[in-house]
Amino acid sequence: MSETRALASYVVTSRLDDIPQDVRHEARRAIVNYISCAVGGSPHQAVEIAIRALGPYAGKPTASVLGRSDRLDPLHASLMNGISSHVYDYDDTTPKNYSHPTSPVASALCAYASVNPVSGRDFMHAFILGFEAESRVGNAVYPAHYDAGWHITGTAGVFGAATAIGRLLGLSEHEMIWAIGLAATQAAGLREMFGSMAKSFHPGRSAQNGYTAALLAQAGFTAGEHGIEGPRGFAAVQAAAYDLSKITAGLGVDFDLRVNTYKPFPCGIVNHPSIDGAIELHHAHRIDPRAIAAVRLRVAPLVMDLCNQQNITRGLQGKFSVYHGAAVGLVRGKAGLQEYTDEAVNDPQVKRVREHTTAVGDASVTEDQAYIEVELESGRTISRFVEASLGNLRRPMTDRQLEQKFRDQAVLALPAEQVEELIALCWRIDDLDDVGDLIRAAVPVTSDRGWRLEARG
Amino acid sequence: MSETRALASYVVTSRLDDIPQDVRHEARRAIVNYISCAVGGSPHQAVEIAIRALGPYAGKPTASVLGRSDRLDPLHASLMNGISSHVYDYDDTTPKNYSHPTSPVASALCAYASVNPVSGRDFMHAFILGFEAESRVGNAVYPAHYDAGWHITGTAGVFGAATAIGRLLGLSEHEMIWAIGLAATQAAGLREMFGSMAKSFHPGRSAQNGYTAALLAQAGFTAGEHGIEGPRGFAAVQAAAYDLSKITAGLGVDFDLRVNTYKPFPCGIVNHPSIDGAIELHHAHRIDPRAIAAVRLRVAPLVMDLCNQQNITRGLQGKFSVYHGAAVGLVRGKAGLQEYTDEAVNDPQVKRVREHTTAVGDASVTEDQAYIEVELESGRTISRFVEASLGNLRRPMTDRQLEQKFRDQAVLALPAEQVEELIALCWRIDDLDDVGDLIRAAVPVTSDRGWRLEARG
Repeated sequence: MSETRALASYVVTSRLDDIPQDVRHEARRAIVNYISCAVGGSPHQAVEIAIRALGPYAGKPTASVLGRSDRLDPLHASLMNGISSHVYDYDDTTPKNYSHPTSPVASALCAYASVNPVSGRDFMHAFILGFEAESRVGNAVYPAHYDAGWHITGTAGVFGAATAIGRLLGLSEHEMIWAIGLAATQAAGLREMFGSMAKSFHPGRSAQNGYTAALLAQAGFTAGEHGIEGPRGFAAVQAAAYDLSKITAGLGVDFDLRVNTYKPFPCGIVNHPSIDGAIELHHAHRIDPRAIAAVRLRVAPLVMDLCNQQNITRGLQGKFSVYHGAAVGLVRGKAGLQEYTDEAVNDPQVKRVREHTTAVGDASVTEDQAYIEVELESGRTISRFVEASLGNLRRPMTDRQLEQKFRDQAVLALPAEQVEELIALCWRIDDLDDVGDLIRAAVPVTSDRGWRLEARG
Repeated sequence: MSETRALASYVVTSRLDDIPQDVRHEARRAIVNYISCAVGGSPHQAVEIAIRALGPYAGKPTASVLGRSDRLDPLHASLMNGISSHVYDYDDTTPKNYSHPTSPVASALCAYASVNPVSGRDFMHAFILGFEAESRVGNAVYPAHYDAGWHITGTAGVFGAATAIGRLLGLSEHEMIWAIGLAATQAAGLREMFGSMAKSFHPGRSAQNGYTAALLAQAGFTAGEHGIEGPRGFAAVQAAAYDLSKITAGLGVDFDLRVNTYKPFPCGIVNHPSIDGAIELHHAHRIDPRAIAAVRLRVAPLVMDLCNQQNITRGLQGKFSVYHGAAVGLVRGKAGLQEYTDEAVNDPQVKRVREHTTAVGDASVTEDQAYIEVELESGRTISRFVEASLGNLRRPMTDRQLEQKFRDQAVLALPAEQVEELIALCWRIDDLDDVGDLIRAAVPVTSDRGWRLEARG
């Protein structure tokens, strides 16, 4: 059986009860993390601009955009959800192919659920299947595909959105094969766009294009039936080397959600160990920032290549400064989105500590490790060796830490009380009769359409 | 200067008066051919299905779909125009990279012009620039890109639509660079889709995506500035070998429109010489089909590999039957869309002649040649050697032949009188104050919105 057919067959016939509970909990964690990123990123200029540019072309305003009061058609809402959830590079990462797997799938599903009644079980089932399809397609072509310059979040993402939406639409196996073909022939996204808004466009467009593929297939729009494995299909055309067995091996038994990871800090991952150690010291010693005389970091040499900026004035520069990361960790005890604003970078206390920080590269320190030493005005020295940085597979973020990340982001777009309600809804998403209730809780309450009223009837 | 910037700069600063008259006439020919294909293809099932699937998600119905009374937003109208104009594989072909260059550019422009006032001069200028941008991007990566399995009509097409629409929107050079970047990162379309509706989706989606790229860039949505030539840009990622000098060499002096070609017959190009000879004999000798006793073809050996089907019952099979091509040429004196319907294949006169036709491969006959001999019941034999088949660069279709092709197709969607008016408008498109007049003449007159009334005020 071809890989395209095997994948289509699995997505169409899978039963949620056959998916292990640990996978289902990891899916909830992925959704918690995703919703927080999408809501937190929703006020970003990239989203504003995209809505201003494309809103006039959108269809009936039936669908919600996470975190915003704008309403668009569900295809455009998918695009905006994808942009907002990835724009801070704060969404999840799969170490199997370094794509950001949840955004393309969940961005389409949340748009879908905002206009169609869908139970939490069906939503989560479709999410797990789309995530798996996308991740496996990415695995099959990684690393040649990524090394060539493809942004896998864009290219594999469209398969995830197409299969997830296709599952909710109830596509037949044959229609699902067409949906996969229409996804394959839209797979796009270049790493050349990194550093611009177009990077966040990739998961958004893949969500929108995958959703479109499923709608077309449902209506009978035909496509090649070997979209993945054909001689001129996705794998052969878009990867110099690939292994199609990764698409089917252990399908329905092994789940890539089990190795998904969440970023604790919205900055270059090489800074994470230093930040992590700084936050630990802050909490363990209740450090008064004014008492800090000097900070000394010993880090992997790569950190010095990538993040050796000390004299900075803008939030975006902070993401590439290991000094800033250590400073906000020590001063504020956290490093969320609000620690990477222009204001945070110019906060006098943060600035003073940053300027008193030194860093050296040390080849004996791995990329998920850091050594941090703080000398206090009293002459006392405290230190911490981070053996495995928070957020990687050896030390995943806890559910509570994901919640804290959620609060930190979501308050940028929603009142604190609503954020708590939204967090609670996310954790019990499987039990919801209609995921629309959750989506409505993820947009601002406005006078003309109170989500509470709509959600609670 | 980078190729992306050079192209952006040229598109932004070009003056129509600097473009030679022969290029401008060839542009009109391309538009005549395009409109006829889009109108002729507009009732096709692929268009029906796409409108049924995506119409409910479309925005304000301000834009016309060529040949149809449906109205959609201009982005979706671009998609439908692209599908209809390519669905019969009857649109133009550039021998430089074998893409079908007009559809992606003109599909977006016609949608744009149906909602925005745009003069014929501005429209044609944008068309010429978009065609050139797209063709040059295609040339730069051909043949490695095509050989790998990319459908250049899709991948290069998005550059054409983005630059053409960007020009009409009045983008600055910097915005045009972003538009090109957003085009590059959406470049997609796999040859694996050939033989399905998804093939015609490619020019449609590239029109829609290029239009979207231009809108986003205009609003300030940023993209990588080396979309074409960057180390992870279009050329490096999507072609094993490429020559970027083809993008800039002779820009503004050499125009690929000069080598554009138009298909006289909607079938495999290897059948064209036999059809051509048969049509010539029909007209030269006013043959009575009942008087034909036998037909003997001597053709390039490739014809026998690809088109050696004699016992056929369906229109689609007729496209791959050299016997059917010769038969309709002799019996009907033409081979348009109506000669490739199920009805035409089962027409008793056509069937009888087809069954009395034999063909042999001859290595001394080139692929644009054919020898055809007809033996009449009287015993008399007439014959013709086609030295260069109609439609290729050595023997282009005349303006009158393009008009005949236009009539043959457009009557599938529009009344004959309206078709004549539309042809006249196409030829004098440069003189129109508003190309909207032409677009309104290319959709059916309906009781609730008469195009005549709207067009003439």
